Amino acid sequence: MHVAILLYPRFTALDAVGPYTVLSVAPGCTVTFVAAEAGPVVDDQGTLTLLATASYAGLPAPDVIVVPGGPGTLEALSDEPLLEWIRRAHEHTRWTTSVCTGSLILGAAGLLTGLKATTHWAFLDALTGFGASPAAERVVTEGKIVTAAGVSAGIDMALTLLARARDVETAQLVQLAIEYDPRPPFDAGSPKTAPDGLAERALTLLTGA
Amino acid sequence: MHVAILLYPRFTALDAVGPYTVLSVAPGCTVTFVAAEAGPVVDDQGTLTLLATASYAGLPAPDVIVVPGGPGTLEALSDEPLLEWIRRAHEHTRWTTSVCTGSLILGAAGLLTGLKATTHWAFLDALTGFGASPAAERVVTEGKIVTAAGVSAGIDMALTLLARARDVETAQLVQLAIEYDPRPPFDAGSPKTAPDGLAERALTLLTGA
Repeated sequence: MHVAILLYPRFTALDAVGPYTVLSVAPGCTVTFVAAEAGPVVDDQGTLTLLATASYAGLPAPDVIVVPGGPGTLEALSDEPLLEWIRRAHEHTRWTTSVCTGSLILGAAGLLTGLKATTHWAFLDALTGFGASPAAERVVTEGKIVTAAGVSAGIDMALTLLARARDVETAQLVQLAIEYDPRPPFDAGSPKTAPDGLAERALTLLTGA
Repeated sequence: MHVAILLYPRFTALDAVGPYTVLSVAPGCTVTFVAAEAGPVVDDQGTLTLLATASYAGLPAPDVIVVPGGPGTLEALSDEPLLEWIRRAHEHTRWTTSVCTGSLILGAAGLLTGLKATTHWAFLDALTGFGASPAAERVVTEGKIVTAAGVSAGIDMALTLLARARDVETAQLVQLAIEYDPRPPFDAGSPKTAPDGLAERALTLLTGA
């Protein structure tokens, strides 16, 4: 199974590296980072650089695509070569997936019309602009399209995907290998459980970056 | 607060990028990837390349160091310039931390003698070789040394660290921003809960890579 993870300027690193780690550890999976051109791509903090090893032209038909989110989503929404790569790849994929605001990019490519989808909690409403029905869920599967909530949700998405694309035991094997037995020290990862006022501050942190 | 994340050949990507994402999002934190020399460093799967932007010599005294694990740990344990950078940095750090088998590197640098520490579940016994007491816990804090369990535990470690180094509210703010509200699809992330026989297979996957 060949997985292509899309990179574009100002992506969020964990959106890409969470699914990467799950899928690259799985036996029989190959993961490639793809961008407009092969070469360095800088993340949303300006301090992490990942190397894309394939261009859009060099990897037209992977089995799975993963579209991460991040502040760079805003530019990606009108990046026609990027959207065209997604549209064409999607014609052949077994699975088309996103993490965080990556689902807005799937929406801009026209893939979410009439479908339920999720994204980062702060941007759920924006999905309606692409004809999708927002769902405040961790992972949403609609046919071969799988969307995940914000940033860290890509790990849950990739394990869910692996169980579907391969089998439950392979997903459990990878989960154990990466010791994914999360113990968040606080119960503040969702606006439903976070202390009052924190969502507004988080939104400022996210959009002011 | 200046955080240095150490990179070395065949590190595990999520060990580094989990803490990176938590700490780089935190207001007032700067994160730098450091290696023997500035430049590309390839991960344990051979398919992800991160750019180090500082050499050991260029970043001698960060406030926090994060040492990731991975199959490359084995070579790192006898990499004297790497161990010497850790020893000298540790003299000045506010916090010295590790993820996964990164704690074995702290051990090889002589920092864990007589201390409780953790690492990936499969390698806990190896800590005794460095005079440490292995603890099967998610995150272990001993003075200014914080060690984390395998791979994904770096996210929990970084949030725990942020709450101590700054305050609880900052850690919760970051947790909400990265929507760290984990929902693993299976309860297989620990050898205590994984199906029978899976630990042996995971060990083969990890050491055969």
